[in-house]
Amino acid sequence: MKKYQLMAPGPTPVPSQALLAMAQPMIHHRTPEYEALFTEVRRGLARIFQTQTDVVPLACSGTGAMEAAVVNTLSAGDTVAVVRAGKFGERWVEIGKAYGLNVIELAAPFGQTVPAERVAEALGKTPSIKAVLTQHSESSTGVLHDVRGFAAVTRPTDAILIVDAVSSLAIANLETDAWGVDVVVAGSQKGLMLPPGLGFCALSERAWARAKTSTLPKYYFNLIQERAFVVKSEAHFTPAVSIIVGLREVLRMLEAEGLPQVFKRHDRLARATRAGVEALGLELFAKATPSPALTSVHAPRGVDAEKIVAAFSKTHNITIAGGQGEMKGRIFRLGHMGYAAEFDTISALAALEQVLAELGVPVDFGASVRAAQKVFAEKP
Amino acid sequence: MKKYQLMAPGPTPVPSQALLAMAQPMIHHRTPEYEALFTEVRRGLARIFQTQTDVVPLACSGTGAMEAAVVNTLSAGDTVAVVRAGKFGERWVEIGKAYGLNVIELAAPFGQTVPAERVAEALGKTPSIKAVLTQHSESSTGVLHDVRGFAAVTRPTDAILIVDAVSSLAIANLETDAWGVDVVVAGSQKGLMLPPGLGFCALSERAWARAKTSTLPKYYFNLIQERAFVVKSEAHFTPAVSIIVGLREVLRMLEAEGLPQVFKRHDRLARATRAGVEALGLELFAKATPSPALTSVHAPRGVDAEKIVAAFSKTHNITIAGGQGEMKGRIFRLGHMGYAAEFDTISALAALEQVLAELGVPVDFGASVRAAQKVFAEKP
Repeated sequence: MKKYQLMAPGPTPVPSQALLAMAQPMIHHRTPEYEALFTEVRRGLARIFQTQTDVVPLACSGTGAMEAAVVNTLSAGDTVAVVRAGKFGERWVEIGKAYGLNVIELAAPFGQTVPAERVAEALGKTPSIKAVLTQHSESSTGVLHDVRGFAAVTRPTDAILIVDAVSSLAIANLETDAWGVDVVVAGSQKGLMLPPGLGFCALSERAWARAKTSTLPKYYFNLIQERAFVVKSEAHFTPAVSIIVGLREVLRMLEAEGLPQVFKRHDRLARATRAGVEALGLELFAKATPSPALTSVHAPRGVDAEKIVAAFSKTHNITIAGGQGEMKGRIFRLGHMGYAAEFDTISALAALEQVLAELGVPVDFGASVRAAQKVFAEKP
Repeated sequence: MKKYQLMAPGPTPVPSQALLAMAQPMIHHRTPEYEALFTEVRRGLARIFQTQTDVVPLACSGTGAMEAAVVNTLSAGDTVAVVRAGKFGERWVEIGKAYGLNVIELAAPFGQTVPAERVAEALGKTPSIKAVLTQHSESSTGVLHDVRGFAAVTRPTDAILIVDAVSSLAIANLETDAWGVDVVVAGSQKGLMLPPGLGFCALSERAWARAKTSTLPKYYFNLIQERAFVVKSEAHFTPAVSIIVGLREVLRMLEAEGLPQVFKRHDRLARATRAGVEALGLELFAKATPSPALTSVHAPRGVDAEKIVAAFSKTHNITIAGGQGEMKGRIFRLGHMGYAAEFDTISALAALEQVLAELGVPVDFGASVRAAQKVFAEKP
């Protein structure tokens, strides 16, 4: 028996509480039952998004919510600046171009970030920039971008800040209202521990005002129309009912743990993973500003990273992820987000040791586990 | 104890086989496991859609798939003809207008249909029409439109036929390839017996050719890009994994039953429901061409239809639906689609009798049940 373990940077494992809640008989979405469910969910979402405004759920994956953010706040020909330092930064560029935006790329090599000063510089140089688009956690590289810094330089300008928090919501602290982030985009399958299929957009009042003048065509993703239903705890179009049912469960779990502790847990798991990986002599890919959602690691010299991913799966029934785009074969990525705890990290590191040994890399068995345990033994 | 029964025109009950399959641990979508799952699903979908071409699933509800059909096959300024005879016909009009199409409305009063001759006439009068858009089953009114007839008149022209089959797929016969339907749009939560959250588009080669020249902006719903992944049994963006897992189960169930029998079952349930309703002296709303997916019924004189819906729910824990838009308060709708069988219909009719009696309408108890049983007793 090899127990299946999902340790990829999303989708992440779903807790049994949510799986079983979603396995209950289907309910209809135009009923008092659904309204009661959604009223609780709305309150919980506002707390998790750290905002006073309405969080709008959409039946789509994270990319759909990214598109919704763009088509509701911008118009064809608008100039935007995109922080591009990974596959998901590239996705912002692609969406912008698909909708006829004039995209200024603030690029950094994969594995690195773009300092807030560069964003400020771009805004100073091109005052017509209508929006800055970025990831919070760039899950293709494992880098956490400085959203707080971006917000500080965006806020005094006419540009709104649109943040893809798909792999950071309920993982890394993101103070939407307090920092002045205008649009936060998220998905269900990362920190929220649910199956994929739900996207979210949270807009500041500044962003809602923009939505009124945006001329990009939209229908399914029309957030102004959807919001009119959300405030009544209803949905414009048929919602992903079962995932909303699961959402109530995970929101209760997150509420019970407390958001500060949720962030602390992810930070500990990330630090333990990094310590373990380095104890094996491996090199971290995202050195300066690693994300607490996942750890990206250079494959040892002479080893194809895809072989490491395959061995995790074939020999140990554990799903991790390889590199994406230009990093394919060069890095592997260990997820530790959402429904992840200390002994998942211990298992992942022990498996990594065994996989490396199987691939002929000399390994001091237990070294990475020991390093992780030392992190876990630290006083909180 | 009041057992909960979902008898609305979608979402519909989900069989336990699918609920429990979806409650299994989450799997990752970039793995051989997912590819094997999706390979089976692809084959099953092609059979259910009665097409040789690739059916493209999208993580969205039916409306998202409707929008995908439009933005992939048309360009701004194109003229389209819309069969508008209910709320979902209106939705085609709204989507068309949101994307700058020139919409010719072929309207009929709610509860009626538009004859194929009127479509032919419109095509003759306006040869620039690029597409005809229609529902198959208009679930707001309970009418089944003559898609076969529409296809016959559309096929010889340059116009493609786009059919919203959200509430007819795996319910009413729709021979996509044989009839020459160019785009079939569907959702997961009706005949496919799944939770909402998956949409589908099946395009003919003629429609795929159109997709190459369509200039409407799109990214998340770009079907050409998505198809490139579908043919490899992969997905461009994170798919709604759990619903795809459930889809394998329901496709196996539908396969075991056999598509002709699936259509026959729905036809029998619909005929039994109509016979039962008429045995109570109630008037059907969709007289000429009723849908096998649902039965829409005029409330008895002097009774608010919303009160009937409320009594079903409050007294008997059964969800049915009222009228939508202009029909609110005037009709109620009984769904009998998807995971629905004879004794569900019997229950619905018995409950209807009890509800009417509770609302002070004179009722001959058992009359509607008897009428339905006579239909069920007919030789197949």
